Amino acid sequence: METANLLELLRQIKSGRLTPEEGAARLRREPFEDLGYAKIDHHRWLRQGSGEAIFGSGKTSPQLIELVDRMAQAGSRNILITRLPAERADDLVAAGTPLVYHPTPRLAVAWPDPVPLTGAVVVASAGTSDLPVAEEAALTAETLGSQVTRLYDVGVAGLHRLLAQQDSLIAARAIVAVAGMEGALPSVVAGLVGCPVVAVPTSVGYGANWGGLAALLAMLNSCANGVSVVNIDNGFGAGWIAHSVNRTESPT
Amino acid sequence: METANLLELLRQIKSGRLTPEEGAARLRREPFEDLGYAKIDHHRWLRQGSGEAIFGSGKTSPQLIELVDRMAQAGSRNILITRLPAERADDLVAAGTPLVYHPTPRLAVAWPDPVPLTGAVVVASAGTSDLPVAEEAALTAETLGSQVTRLYDVGVAGLHRLLAQQDSLIAARAIVAVAGMEGALPSVVAGLVGCPVVAVPTSVGYGANWGGLAALLAMLNSCANGVSVVNIDNGFGAGWIAHSVNRTESPT
Amino acid sequence: METANLLELLRQIKSGRLTPEEGAARLRREPFEDLGYAKIDHHRWLRQGSGEAIFGSGKTSPQLIELVDRMAQAGSRNILITRLPAERADDLVAAGTPLVYHPTPRLAVAWPDPVPLTGAVVVASAGTSDLPVAEEAALTAETLGSQVTRLYDVGVAGLHRLLAQQDSLIAARAIVAVAGMEGALPSVVAGLVGCPVVAVPTSVGYGANWGGLAALLAMLNSCANGVSVVNIDNGFGAGWIAHSVNRTESPT
Amino acid sequence: METANLLELLRQIKSGRLTPEEGAARLRREPFEDLGYAKIDHHRWLRQGSGEAIFGSGKTSPQLIELVDRMAQAGSRNILITRLPAERADDLVAAGTPLVYHPTPRLAVAWPDPVPLTGAVVVASAGTSDLPVAEEAALTAETLGSQVTRLYDVGVAGLHRLLAQQDSLIAARAIVAVAGMEGALPSVVAGLVGCPVVAVPTSVGYGANWGGLAALLAMLNSCANGVSVVNIDNGFGAGWIAHSVNRTESPT
Amino acid sequence: METANLLELLRQIKSGRLTPEEGAARLRREPFEDLGYAKIDHHRWLRQGSGEAIFGSGKTSPQLIELVDRMAQAGSRNILITRLPAERADDLVAAGTPLVYHPTPRLAVAWPDPVPLTGAVVVASAGTSDLPVAEEAALTAETLGSQVTRLYDVGVAGLHRLLAQQDSLIAARAIVAVAGMEGALPSVVAGLVGCPVVAVPTSVGYGANWGGLAALLAMLNSCANGVSVVNIDNGFGAGWIAHSVNRTESPT
Amino acid sequence: METANLLELLRQIKSGRLTPEEGAARLRREPFEDLGYAKIDHHRWLRQGSGEAIFGSGKTSPQLIELVDRMAQAGSRNILITRLPAERADDLVAAGTPLVYHPTPRLAVAWPDPVPLTGAVVVASAGTSDLPVAEEAALTAETLGSQVTRLYDVGVAGLHRLLAQQDSLIAARAIVAVAGMEGALPSVVAGLVGCPVVAVPTSVGYGANWGGLAALLAMLNSCANGVSVVNIDNGFGAGWIAHSVNRTESPT
Amino acid sequence: METANLLELLRQIKSGRLTPEEGAARLRREPFEDLGYAKIDHHRWLRQGSGEAIFGSGKTSPQLIELVDRMAQAGSRNILITRLPAERADDLVAAGTPLVYHPTPRLAVAWPDPVPLTGAVVVASAGTSDLPVAEEAALTAETLGSQVTRLYDVGVAGLHRLLAQQDSLIAARAIVAVAGMEGALPSVVAGLVGCPVVAVPTSVGYGANWGGLAALLAMLNSCANGVSVVNIDNGFGAGWIAHSVNRTESPT
Amino acid sequence: METANLLELLRQIKSGRLTPEEGAARLRREPFEDLGYAKIDHHRWLRQGSGEAIFGSGKTSPQLIELVDRMAQAGSRNILITRLPAERADDLVAAGTPLVYHPTPRLAVAWPDPVPLTGAVVVASAGTSDLPVAEEAALTAETLGSQVTRLYDVGVAGLHRLLAQQDSLIAARAIVAVAGMEGALPSVVAGLVGCPVVAVPTSVGYGANWGGLAALLAMLNSCANGVSVVNIDNGFGAGWIAHSVNRTESPT
Repeated sequence: METANLLELLRQIKSGRLTPEEGAARLRREPFEDLGYAKIDHHRWLRQGSGEAIFGSGKTSPQLIELVDRMAQAGSRNILITRLPAERADDLVAAGTPLVYHPTPRLAVAWPDPVPLTGAVVVASAGTSDLPVAEEAALTAETLGSQVTRLYDVGVAGLHRLLAQQDSLIAARAIVAVAGMEGALPSVVAGLVGCPVVAVPTSVGYGANWGGLAALLAMLNSCANGVSVVNIDNGFGAGWIAHSVNRTESPT
Repeated sequence: METANLLELLRQIKSGRLTPEEGAARLRREPFEDLGYAKIDHHRWLRQGSGEAIFGSGKTSPQLIELVDRMAQAGSRNILITRLPAERADDLVAAGTPLVYHPTPRLAVAWPDPVPLTGAVVVASAGTSDLPVAEEAALTAETLGSQVTRLYDVGVAGLHRLLAQQDSLIAARAIVAVAGMEGALPSVVAGLVGCPVVAVPTSVGYGANWGGLAALLAMLNSCANGVSVVNIDNGFGAGWIAHSVNRTESPT
Repeated sequence: METANLLELLRQIKSGRLTPEEGAARLRREPFEDLGYAKIDHHRWLRQGSGEAIFGSGKTSPQLIELVDRMAQAGSRNILITRLPAERADDLVAAGTPLVYHPTPRLAVAWPDPVPLTGAVVVASAGTSDLPVAEEAALTAETLGSQVTRLYDVGVAGLHRLLAQQDSLIAARAIVAVAGMEGALPSVVAGLVGCPVVAVPTSVGYGANWGGLAALLAMLNSCANGVSVVNIDNGFGAGWIAHSVNRTESPT
Repeated sequence: METANLLELLRQIKSGRLTPEEGAARLRREPFEDLGYAKIDHHRWLRQGSGEAIFGSGKTSPQLIELVDRMAQAGSRNILITRLPAERADDLVAAGTPLVYHPTPRLAVAWPDPVPLTGAVVVASAGTSDLPVAEEAALTAETLGSQVTRLYDVGVAGLHRLLAQQDSLIAARAIVAVAGMEGALPSVVAGLVGCPVVAVPTSVGYGANWGGLAALLAMLNSCANGVSVVNIDNGFGAGWIAHSVNRTESPT
Repeated sequence: METANLLELLRQIKSGRLTPEEGAARLRREPFEDLGYAKIDHHRWLRQGSGEAIFGSGKTSPQLIELVDRMAQAGSRNILITRLPAERADDLVAAGTPLVYHPTPRLAVAWPDPVPLTGAVVVASAGTSDLPVAEEAALTAETLGSQVTRLYDVGVAGLHRLLAQQDSLIAARAIVAVAGMEGALPSVVAGLVGCPVVAVPTSVGYGANWGGLAALLAMLNSCANGVSVVNIDNGFGAGWIAHSVNRTESPT
Repeated sequence: METANLLELLRQIKSGRLTPEEGAARLRREPFEDLGYAKIDHHRWLRQGSGEAIFGSGKTSPQLIELVDRMAQAGSRNILITRLPAERADDLVAAGTPLVYHPTPRLAVAWPDPVPLTGAVVVASAGTSDLPVAEEAALTAETLGSQVTRLYDVGVAGLHRLLAQQDSLIAARAIVAVAGMEGALPSVVAGLVGCPVVAVPTSVGYGANWGGLAALLAMLNSCANGVSVVNIDNGFGAGWIAHSVNRTESPT
Repeated sequence: METANLLELLRQIKSGRLTPEEGAARLRREPFEDLGYAKIDHHRWLRQGSGEAIFGSGKTSPQLIELVDRMAQAGSRNILITRLPAERADDLVAAGTPLVYHPTPRLAVAWPDPVPLTGAVVVASAGTSDLPVAEEAALTAETLGSQVTRLYDVGVAGLHRLLAQQDSLIAARAIVAVAGMEGALPSVVAGLVGCPVVAVPTSVGYGANWGGLAALLAMLNSCANGVSVVNIDNGFGAGWIAHSVNRTESPT
Repeated sequence: METANLLELLRQIKSGRLTPEEGAARLRREPFEDLGYAKIDHHRWLRQGSGEAIFGSGKTSPQLIELVDRMAQAGSRNILITRLPAERADDLVAAGTPLVYHPTPRLAVAWPDPVPLTGAVVVASAGTSDLPVAEEAALTAETLGSQVTRLYDVGVAGLHRLLAQQDSLIAARAIVAVAGMEGALPSVVAGLVGCPVVAVPTSVGYGANWGGLAALLAMLNSCANGVSVVNIDNGFGAGWIAHSVNRTESPT
């Protein structure tokens, strides 16, 4: 219940147009979001500069078109659609949805409305096969408003490539470290910096990799401080968190 | 190599006391940390207000005493020792190490040197059995310099207890959400706020919990934005990351 | 052996047409279902208002047609066929089988014979991708005779949507809670009500979801009273159980 | 907020002792349970004839004593404490807590206040080693008010023992089926009856049993209708659900 | 129902002391084992030369004493008690139970009554640590009446030791192959012979052995014909099956 | 080395045509199969009435044709080819290989040469979806020379169907019990009989079945004596073992 | 930094063209590979007679063409491309890349430049289905310069085939042992020789093989000395290591 | 059969003291090791400078004393006993066995007879808790005759410590890399060198480490060439292999 409406109700009680008993009954029946919850979402939007993202995989084109439409009408911009097959993107465009589509991470930004990029997020990835996940993270953070530096193909089997990028790493306010196979990159990166490192295991690999399990466990067991982990291949989640850290302002 | 020493070496070359060839040889032989790496650690200390932590489990008292001694001599203060059995803590105290010991999380702060607490970190936990892990997180963040609010026993099977604390949650700059069993707390919390939520699965439970696996997988699969995960029972890691986010300052 | 036949046999012994020894031998040879088992199934049909269900996946159209035919001839109505591909449904219809087909849950009701809907079952689901499983549960309970309320898209990352439906939840006699990913919905729901909650993990998700393992473990470890769990994606099983609870009558 | 208090507040607004703005502010500040949630718990207690249970494992005697005290003061009776070591039970008794302790399932009932037993719950178990779990289920259901029939040692490798009890099984309103090892009992039982069967896998076994995994998976994959599953060794949960089904009354 | 009792009942019907209706009712009420099941067990005893075995682990001495007593009174001899701690064995002996105890496999034979040994069972084991399991198998088969040849310490890393025993292997009617670690012995043995090989994985090993999982999986995936597998460390089961094969007689 | 050849060699030494040193050298160089190993295989063929089987999956038609040809030329008959796609079977037939193909289990018998069927093997299966595996077992045992009785669709959720077949079960010399889902059939069957029961878990099921893991673990943990287990879906292996038991003759 | 450049910098300091402070600053800024790291890679190439290998799976033809081009221009020869689909190989050839393609292991050697083959590597494999992995190992070792002996189809279920090859095994300087299913080959081989055995589990098998897990665990638990393990199906890695051992020269 | 004995037998045939038939019979009966196998073990001892090792865990003192005695009498020296509890070592010494005991790795060398150390093996470990495993590897390689350099506490979260040791790494002929937690050390090390790297995962860690699984999987999935893996905590095996590589001499 909007504060305005609540006040109106209480004023009606005061004026006698509503008895206290009737008011109590109405307050009891009021859906919870109307007693303050809706504001939370509103706050969220204000703080984050973007609405919710849509998990595009497994949704039909009509479902996606309607979902985006409703969000856009509610004022959302830069609506991220993850894991969107190219054909679905074409359908959205054909339906008139303003859309930028990134084929490598299969990520779309509907109703794009670029925000100024600030801060410093680094997205580092171990191998070329990790690129789709890394790009999902980088584009997510950029769409939300973070300045992103990409350090790709800096796997731990060729340390010099990573060490040559120390300046970028040290300057970062948040780092996304993407790696498949043995998933060692986040540990090495976190050993070089002081900011939070969001580790993304990828399903890149074969055999005893078991769809990313090896990298996931490695990252969860990182011996370096500052590493937290998101789901396998969840570039979006990591980009979201990195931006969330990056946009943090000095405490007041 | 300390900058002072490097300069001295170069000055010797300049003055002819050392030939360039001798200087090149010495630079090559110099351990790597002396060519710049040490600075990283120094930077780290400056940025973080604390040195490294020690994983206390499985170390002998003499090992711990020596380790802490060397770190203290190198200038470290507020040295966190995690998973420290009470007897070990007693040994350290008997050996003259200044030490504050917290029995519930079995966490010690050696050479305590309280720093001013700033910002706003929330540590929320689901059940009373999760307390040791939650306290490890809270005390870690506090020791590093974060202002911490504890919201304990706010598990999802009694939502009203959690919802009653919405103001604290919304005011947080970083949240640690600790839960065993089904591990649902971080998802629910992250749905209410916009800041990063560091999820800590605990090994609390039995049967198909498999030592925290259930909570771990639940948290990795969170449907809410902003949730990243650390290892099972790793309160220290989560507190470290939460502080790391909390002390982020506005980008310049 | 039907009671009639048993009596006839005993009467033949009484009348001397059969010696006791011959009677004992015949009783020994009698298949077990004839000594009472068949009645069990009969009782079952009476109590439940429906015959058995058919697991449609992996059966050929001729097999399905014959199976349904035999059941219908034996008097079964409202024969549920789960996981039935649309083409198979077409084949059944082409073969003259009376059939209602629901494409989303790929569920068919052969020889439909609607029964009056009674009681109050709620089927709640977390995300739009869980819809097929939720619908399988809802339609199963309805076909068996339960009045069903659907609460879809009430995942725990947006609590207000769920809390707004508290009246329906509290009024339920049995609840099916369907969720993939972190599988937290049943815990939250069970915390709000007093009736049994049948939890259905779905395979919705990716990465460390491992085909529904994450949700399954979460639900098995629920910290809320009243939650029991069925197999991943087993909407039929949950709907069946919910109906079974719902049709319970006051003890005599 | 109690209805009485809410009315009082609204009456103060009506009478002018409180302005509508002051009233709105107080309503906003009010803890959530006071806006209706507390009633839910109250309802729960009324419906279920008992308060919450306490997971006794890992709690200290002082914690348990205080917890029970507070619940008793709030009016709770028949407080179930599961997995309570005998020494803890002694401590509670020594502290003056009225307590009945059952050593086999290590289950205590604090502030016992027997309720009349109604309906018909069957607790069946496969082997003698499953007894503690089966007893936890049976005593839980009895404490909550269900009439319980125990059918122990009716494992599937000796079918005749189970079949001899068909009458009890068919008369049940809810059945708890407890089994370790291959966990086949619930499937066989559910094939004989029409009521809900709550399956409890136990950790009884060795080798490829993996702490109850074998029985758990078997039960989740039951080919019989009506089987839902709780966590390994969770006799309490199963007893709670069985009672919850058993006390269901005819829909109105 | 014993045949004698059944006949008596039918004779009462014949003589008119019981009406057919009364007889039908009594037959219906009769426990199932009385209608033929008991005979099965009796047959079993005749065919197998021994009654049931008792899983000794986790049972109290009084329970064991009573159990053995009842079985002995029912005529059982050579009652195998597996996984029996030495103290329990002492208690049984103190209680007057005739008992032979084998400490290595912790196996007891109560009411020993040696049967003539026939046929040819080989028990082969890979390492000295597998001895307890191998002995459990060998003693079980011997107690049941099989002539057993023990081939111990014939692991595949020293093939010549195994190959030197080819004559024994080829002469066997059934072979139990016991191995921990990589569990390769059954495959190698089955490649040398034509009779059934019962493979027993043991929990001997460490690390990626995971309590016998490695050997279990290896045996289930054997590339040799004739290998079937029992549970980890289940020497009793393997000995039982080997005896069961060994006592097979020519088909008639 | 054939005995004939070995004797010839020794005779040459005796006659002086070969020196002892030359003879020793030739014996050392002789491939091992020539010093007795080849005879093992010969023995095997004699004992088993059939040569080796071919795992047809993943082999090309030319490979299969050549393999079968070479085996046939070496005298093999009734060559079993498992998991053979229908197209491959067509290719073999087109190439002139005498072949009987069974489409349900995708099993071929090349160079068929029916042997008289003896003894009594029962193949029991739980559900209609287990048919291909059950048929693979039944046809394997039949091809090798066993008389096979098929008891299909006798799953434990409808016990009366199984119990009605007790006579067949009790008459069996070896039983193959095939089941997916919860895999309870072998336990129930083994509780009714005294002969060895070879359990075959199938991958039939979904969700927490994990490709047959549930049934596999259940069978390994069987509480009934006499159950050993082969790999998931390995009907061939089970049929082979059942035949191997069935053809056992009375010990001499 | 090349030694030449470092000397030049120090000479500039000596000559006064650079102050020590400026020199220190430049040394600090220098990318790490310029301070010696680049030389490591150069050393590597010299020692190993080959550049890096390319994981061909999942790369596009243009990516592969460019990658190979750049490596060839940098002087690489015998560039191994693993898991290369035949179409990709065609594209590379069409683009003018000199290329030898091996279809069975899907392995290509780009810019082939055969080196003399030395030493003695044996690649042994258990079954015909393991051929692609075995050939990947053999061709890798050959391409790098090892003399390779192939011993294929020497699985442990037919020991005589393996034992007949003892001379080759004993003469080997390094052995690659490839096996799926129960993965016993490396243990048996290592029991016969004294050189290192690199074990390669393959994903060949089904059911409880779980994509090579069974063989992997078996190999990790080998009871024979000298066995180390690479990832499932990683023939390339094993061939690389075997060559690495084979080219070891006497210590100086 | 020793060559001398074989010749003697053939000479007896030549001289007529034995008929060819008698000779053939004796050759057939001769245990396999007598036909050449025993020589293999003899060769092994010559090549490796040491006899077999004994897995000390779980063996009794009398068993160990006898085993060592027999090996010593057969000429073995430097008999390694792994995982030997200190009390057992005391018993061996008390029994007069010459013995050097290393408490950290719980490793004993019985009948020590130091061999000259040659070549260059590096044992690198990540953390101080990995020390026991690393020392087991180092002492094993030393006992067998390898010159060993220990690089301890060079984990990847502090790269500079590892990089400072590049010279030792590059000079190594074989490297053992020991690490728990995320197990990244072998990948980083192998990226710096060209020799084989034997990776040893340790069980050091907690939570999602699952007894070393995380490190094991990481190492199996290493993106660096040259890494092979032994069982968790298997320092002995790794030391053995490293020595085996190290003692390789130039091919002839």
